[in-house]
Amino acid sequence: MHIKQVIGHLESFKHEVTMIEWVELDWEELNKRILRKKTDKGREIAIVLDEQGLTSGDILFHEPGCTIAIRTKLEPAYVIQPKSMHDMGKVAFELGNRHTPCILENNEIIVRYDKTLEVIFHETGVPYVQTEKRFNQPFKYKGHHH
Amino acid sequence: MHIKQVIGHLESFKHEVTMIEWVELDWEELNKRILRKKTDKGREIAIVLDEQGLTSGDILFHEPGCTIAIRTKLEPAYVIQPKSMHDMGKVAFELGNRHTPCILENNEIIVRYDKTLEVIFHETGVPYVQTEKRFNQPFKYKGHHH
Ligand SMILES: [Zn+2]
Ligand SMILES: [Zn+2]
Repeated sequence: MHIKQVIGHLESFKHEVTMIEWVELDWEELNKRILRKKTDKGREIAIVLDEQGLTSGDILFHEPGCTIAIRTKLEPAYVIQPKSMHDMGKVAFELGNRHTPCILENNEIIVRYDKTLEVIFHETGVPYVQTEKRFNQPFKYKGHHH
Repeated sequence: MHIKQVIGHLESFKHEVTMIEWVELDWEELNKRILRKKTDKGREIAIVLDEQGLTSGDILFHEPGCTIAIRTKLEPAYVIQPKSMHDMGKVAFELGNRHTPCILENNEIIVRYDKTLEVIFHETGVPYVQTEKRFNQPFKYKGHHH
């Protein structure tokens, strides 16, 4: 199936969506313009957009009973759960000092899995869980020059 | 006056301390072994210690009515006052990302004055005050390699 444009988004689509056939992308692939993928039902999809920029939830195809949409893959991640302002400050400083891309959500910090980060969690004594997440939003990250 | 050793500390000194004549040091000077300084009353002091390592509050000389002691200089500083865990995380991450030495005290972050940091405070929307502080403890800072 050839896709030339996004026809809507799951959160605002006007037609009834019953079954969703997913195209799962790596987080970085959201920025691509040309992609060749299989849906989770094995259907071949060739995406060629005029402009780059896919979003999780974008609908590529719809007919009654079948909607093909984009979502990001589950990726291994840590959810860091500081219990105080002080601990939040400590662990966020250390992650910044390592230039580790972070998502701050509610009172938690989400980072991609990276075994070497566990030293920081242990040194700061901040609780964390290892889990899997779909990363839909850009990581907060600013480069810097030395 | 020649000083060869520290004879006590203000917090634990057994003799009565009435007037204190201060030797004010830069924070980095606490790590020196040999120093030539003037007290706040203009008295010349030559410090030659066996080992490096002065602490704010160290007593260099005492006689009834006169105690000469060390303290660090007032330095311009910011006290950053995040009002939530989320804001603490944001600003601490940015300061870490800049490798800015920080002191986390209570629910505040103290950093040395540096005009360029104000961009971070404004972007994160975290309140701060500019003030003066004596820095007695080491800054929390870990270098890193790229
Ligand atoms: Zn760096
Ligand atoms: Zn760097």
